[in-house]
Amino acid sequence: MTATDLFFDFVCPYAWRGMELAHVLRAEGETFRLRHFSLVQGNHPDNAGQPEPRWWLTDQPAGEGTVSQRSSLAAFLAARAAACQGDEAAWAFSLALLRIRHEDGQPLEEEALTQAARTAGLDTDRWAADRADDAGLREGLRSDLSEAHRLGVFGTPTFVLPDGHAAYYRFDHLTRDPLVARERWQLYRHVLHSEAGIGTIKRTRRVAS
Amino acid sequence: MTATDLFFDFVCPYAWRGMELAHVLRAEGETFRLRHFSLVQGNHPDNAGQPEPRWWLTDQPAGEGTVSQRSSLAAFLAARAAACQGDEAAWAFSLALLRIRHEDGQPLEEEALTQAARTAGLDTDRWAADRADDAGLREGLRSDLSEAHRLGVFGTPTFVLPDGHAAYYRFDHLTRDPLVARERWQLYRHVLHSEAGIGTIKRTRRVAS
Repeated sequence: MTATDLFFDFVCPYAWRGMELAHVLRAEGETFRLRHFSLVQGNHPDNAGQPEPRWWLTDQPAGEGTVSQRSSLAAFLAARAAACQGDEAAWAFSLALLRIRHEDGQPLEEEALTQAARTAGLDTDRWAADRADDAGLREGLRSDLSEAHRLGVFGTPTFVLPDGHAAYYRFDHLTRDPLVARERWQLYRHVLHSEAGIGTIKRTRRVAS
Repeated sequence: MTATDLFFDFVCPYAWRGMELAHVLRAEGETFRLRHFSLVQGNHPDNAGQPEPRWWLTDQPAGEGTVSQRSSLAAFLAARAAACQGDEAAWAFSLALLRIRHEDGQPLEEEALTQAARTAGLDTDRWAADRADDAGLREGLRSDLSEAHRLGVFGTPTFVLPDGHAAYYRFDHLTRDPLVARERWQLYRHVLHSEAGIGTIKRTRRVAS
């Protein structure tokens, strides 16, 4: 069975809700593959209007740059180190970290990463050792960021279905109910597969008066 | 029965497809009200990031500005003059002009406006006389543009349902089939009314390689 790619960023609350949706659907038999997309890279002014990114998150020295840049890079690399312990470990770590950030409201700092590793039941010694391979982890991240650029990913969560249809899917209300999750997923797929060739449905936002 | 507001711009091919959809649905009993939104105003650099527009299409002297600015202003005012002959006249004129522009590929110039008036079966003498009230027509247009700004309209077509839900709805494939049109409309409403609180479904666009 082929997987749906799920591009996400730890800094994004909509990505968190998308991951929770995928988490419920996995239990129902859907297959997802975790992929990283960086919002600070995607929205970086140096990359605006460029055919190829000029500013790459993976080129930033550790501990340099803005808080968002540092924390999103650290989170991606920590998650990739978790993935060295397998797909399930990567899922458990990623979901735990998104919840710590967006459900509990903690900042995306070292303490949150360590807490996510414990919650996910990682072998924390091995995780620490795998995190030390900074160059290798960055190379893997770069590959996801390149693929996301090629696919035209611009926000998270973006799902890329096995048949190639792909779209950003932003919704406000979290669900952990399998029936609701299934309906939500079917509605999204229905929009992408409609004979209309739907490119965008985007809600307007009223101007505050 | 309350109407769905349909914000559109004559320069936009997606607005044309949205108008064709509404046209089919009207025959099925749905009610739509035609409203104008200007893309050249919405995308004008002077308006970027401004809480209120600084550049208004309605403040542009006739015959001045870029081709898009001149032709969209002229088309809006011509359509508002057509509307002096009633709702059906406004629909017939607007649909005719959109088809001349986007189906036949003609430029949005005076010849196209005159042809649309004839196709729509307008009283062309009265239409010409109503067009002369430039200030009055601009005032009406300004009211639509203000309302669109207040609602947060950013592209066309945007439908504002009687219950207040509103979104941009962009699709590639024209339909004139009532059954297909009905399905397409239900899918759009379903997305807006979903318990998920969907803000955006937007397809990615692959980077040309």
